[in-house]
Amino acid sequence: MSEKCDFGLIGLAVMGENLALNVESRGYSVAVFNRTTEKVDDLINGRAAGKKFVGCHSIEELVDNLASPKKVMLMVKAGPAVDALIEQLIPLLSPGDVIIDGGNTHYADTERRTKYVEEKGLLFVGTGVSGGEEGALKGPSMMPGGSEAAWPIVKPIFQAIAAKVGPNDDIPCCEWVGPRGAGHYVKMVHNGIEYGDMQLICEAYQMLSAGLGLSNDEIYEVFDEWNRGELQSYLIEISRDIFSVKEGDDYLVDKILDVAGAKGTGKWMSQLALDLGVPSTLVTAAVYARTLSAVKEARTRASKVLEGPTASKTFSADERKQWVEKIREALYASKICSYAQGFVQLQAAAKEHDWPLNYGDCALLWRGGCIIRAKFLDRIKEAFDENPQLENLLLHPFFTTAVHGGQQAWRDVVVLATELGLPVPAFSTALAYYDSYRRERLPANLLQAQRDYFGAHTYQRVDKPGTFHTEWLELRRTPAE
Amino acid sequence: MSEKCDFGLIGLAVMGENLALNVESRGYSVAVFNRTTEKVDDLINGRAAGKKFVGCHSIEELVDNLASPKKVMLMVKAGPAVDALIEQLIPLLSPGDVIIDGGNTHYADTERRTKYVEEKGLLFVGTGVSGGEEGALKGPSMMPGGSEAAWPIVKPIFQAIAAKVGPNDDIPCCEWVGPRGAGHYVKMVHNGIEYGDMQLICEAYQMLSAGLGLSNDEIYEVFDEWNRGELQSYLIEISRDIFSVKEGDDYLVDKILDVAGAKGTGKWMSQLALDLGVPSTLVTAAVYARTLSAVKEARTRASKVLEGPTASKTFSADERKQWVEKIREALYASKICSYAQGFVQLQAAAKEHDWPLNYGDCALLWRGGCIIRAKFLDRIKEAFDENPQLENLLLHPFFTTAVHGGQQAWRDVVVLATELGLPVPAFSTALAYYDSYRRERLPANLLQAQRDYFGAHTYQRVDKPGTFHTEWLELRRTPAE
Repeated sequence: MSEKCDFGLIGLAVMGENLALNVESRGYSVAVFNRTTEKVDDLINGRAAGKKFVGCHSIEELVDNLASPKKVMLMVKAGPAVDALIEQLIPLLSPGDVIIDGGNTHYADTERRTKYVEEKGLLFVGTGVSGGEEGALKGPSMMPGGSEAAWPIVKPIFQAIAAKVGPNDDIPCCEWVGPRGAGHYVKMVHNGIEYGDMQLICEAYQMLSAGLGLSNDEIYEVFDEWNRGELQSYLIEISRDIFSVKEGDDYLVDKILDVAGAKGTGKWMSQLALDLGVPSTLVTAAVYARTLSAVKEARTRASKVLEGPTASKTFSADERKQWVEKIREALYASKICSYAQGFVQLQAAAKEHDWPLNYGDCALLWRGGCIIRAKFLDRIKEAFDENPQLENLLLHPFFTTAVHGGQQAWRDVVVLATELGLPVPAFSTALAYYDSYRRERLPANLLQAQRDYFGAHTYQRVDKPGTFHTEWLELRRTPAE
Repeated sequence: MSEKCDFGLIGLAVMGENLALNVESRGYSVAVFNRTTEKVDDLINGRAAGKKFVGCHSIEELVDNLASPKKVMLMVKAGPAVDALIEQLIPLLSPGDVIIDGGNTHYADTERRTKYVEEKGLLFVGTGVSGGEEGALKGPSMMPGGSEAAWPIVKPIFQAIAAKVGPNDDIPCCEWVGPRGAGHYVKMVHNGIEYGDMQLICEAYQMLSAGLGLSNDEIYEVFDEWNRGELQSYLIEISRDIFSVKEGDDYLVDKILDVAGAKGTGKWMSQLALDLGVPSTLVTAAVYARTLSAVKEARTRASKVLEGPTASKTFSADERKQWVEKIREALYASKICSYAQGFVQLQAAAKEHDWPLNYGDCALLWRGGCIIRAKFLDRIKEAFDENPQLENLLLHPFFTTAVHGGQQAWRDVVVLATELGLPVPAFSTALAYYDSYRRERLPANLLQAQRDYFGAHTYQRVDKPGTFHTEWLELRRTPAE
């Protein structure tokens, strides 16, 4: 093939390879390179055989094979490898060419790299890509940010390969997110919300199994039913599927060790929430729950020492049915709080970094292709389209009504879990968030008094402006001995 | 005065000035310097008049006035000011001299500075100092770390000025913590535990006032009583006092705005817990609770939209009395979990940084002088003295018994709060921690199955070693339409 290619891709691990095949399948020719060049040959002679691919054995060859403006996407491990490739590419590219990082990169690196690459006269895009292997091949959710001028150049290809939603399946889950690191930040919040969703589903599962005593078959039916209603989503769907997979007479899920791994984006989101001073309590509860799952041996030892409540409960078939519905409502209400927190964090980050984010678009990007895809995101998009300044999802009438409808059930489930001794950190942190946020008066007045007492940190008053300090020790009632 | 001084101190804000006066009061002569030199003169002509002080108008003068090995303590704002002073001091000092940072420094800076100052042939100490203004003057808790060789040099002065505890009031709350940043890390954990204690007390206050309807006078009596038992501590004592301070007919605490400030150490501890992968959920819940207190206007708006439970409760005098006792038990059990988490984080940090920490000593340092000082810390010291490798405080018989005794009351309080719609994020995160930690089987098996389903992240099994991946999509039951 002597014609120049439309798109270049470096890094042929499973995500990169699938993304390259996806691009080609939309009618674009693709030049590919991988450090271990056998991978290139394997792809060209295998899955890419007969397709519009050019296999390259060096970065120079890859760049030579691209039509201008050249678009080179990196699908390599986030970190120093990306910086090294950028250094190699800069001297080979010309003004107007675009370097794209599609890895799971910390947004601060993308902030820095966008500025750096632009200083060198080139354009940079940092894009979140969600959807796993299958999404990469068939249509991921894409969250691009970086150099504004790069968007018209990459838009046709990105929107062609992205997942599609809408009544006619023609709305791509890919829109320009914002400058510099905005795309990777939105991807991080997506992943943090994913942590929350997964933890909430696990707590629901625990209530159904350890709490109500449902069998795996019954849990399959419950998730199947939930997936037909408000909770309809990819994660509920795959949870349902998981309860159907057997090994002989045994369910595979029962054989899996209860030790959860993590790749760090939930941690990043929590740490950044703490820096911003916004209460993203659900993602943090989910991250901490994973750390507690990880100490399996310590838990096994502790389980032999630390006792739980003595009361046990039995449930009639009718009661079980009612509790299943209550657990569904608790899950839904908690999920609404989790998404509300995610958008509050996005708003705070946008303010700090001066990103003009469109929150309705963020919801749209997550509507298909990605792990948190759900019917529910249509409602979030509508809410932000209606009011782009909406300060909290919970204040939109649709979600206010939803939470009001579910709150008694939500409380009942937290109460039941507490009585049974089953941990529901995400359900209960969501409820504490709701009850704190809707409370005009919190007990922090005492906390400010304490800080002023021991450290002269001063306080403000409810009845007049200004900053005050009190000599508490002098004014206190002399305590009795 | 022509004799050389025993101790030098730079930075005469309230903590520095009080600390200098404390050192002098133990029989040591002190040279002092402050960038704004009027402060030096004010001190010399004021509170230090007639005492063994030398006021200096330059750093050179201060160093000249010190006996060898020279000891210079910095009591300035944490950050670049410390680095700048270190640079100025290095050329003026000689091998064996000691630079001491007594500020609220991030431990990572102390790690770096210890290495740097040692490279220059000098010794460095980074010490936590807790106790506020009054503690600095009369006896703070001190948590020194840094260059091992500096300890014998500073020990006599540090132990002389520190708070004293024990039956004869002769055990100083100051022991060598460990190398490099260990002292500042222990101080950070102290502050994080302080965040947790304060939030727990605020939640108890809210349950007493908004929940049970107790008056400020009644709450005074409750805290007074609590301060005579297991909960006896400085923070309970000052909380009691706060409820006695009036302005005319009104209680001052009711006039204070419920917006809590923060200076960042709770945030640091949370972020480092997330990096270490340890579940310090209480400090994080406390930090998040402060961020929610901070959005007072948003809460006021939300309070007009978001509804709580409709049920309200009334309590007889007897019921109130029972609930007060239950709230006390919930506070005590939650506090035990909070301290357990703090020590687990210390253990993880010690492992990561190769610090040979003595956990019994840490508890001793906090026994007096500092904000979290409490009777309870004697028990923690005993527990770690008995078993220096104790993996979790909850597993020591004293604390196991304490939590077993209180757990039903603790659950009852979380249930009551949930039913009343009062947020108790710290009580409930503590309970979720307890119920997770004592559970051999958590629902993370489903989470691992989900991760393997959508991302081929693999999983481990309960019945055999190894790493496994399943083609879930192929094996699932075909779902009904």
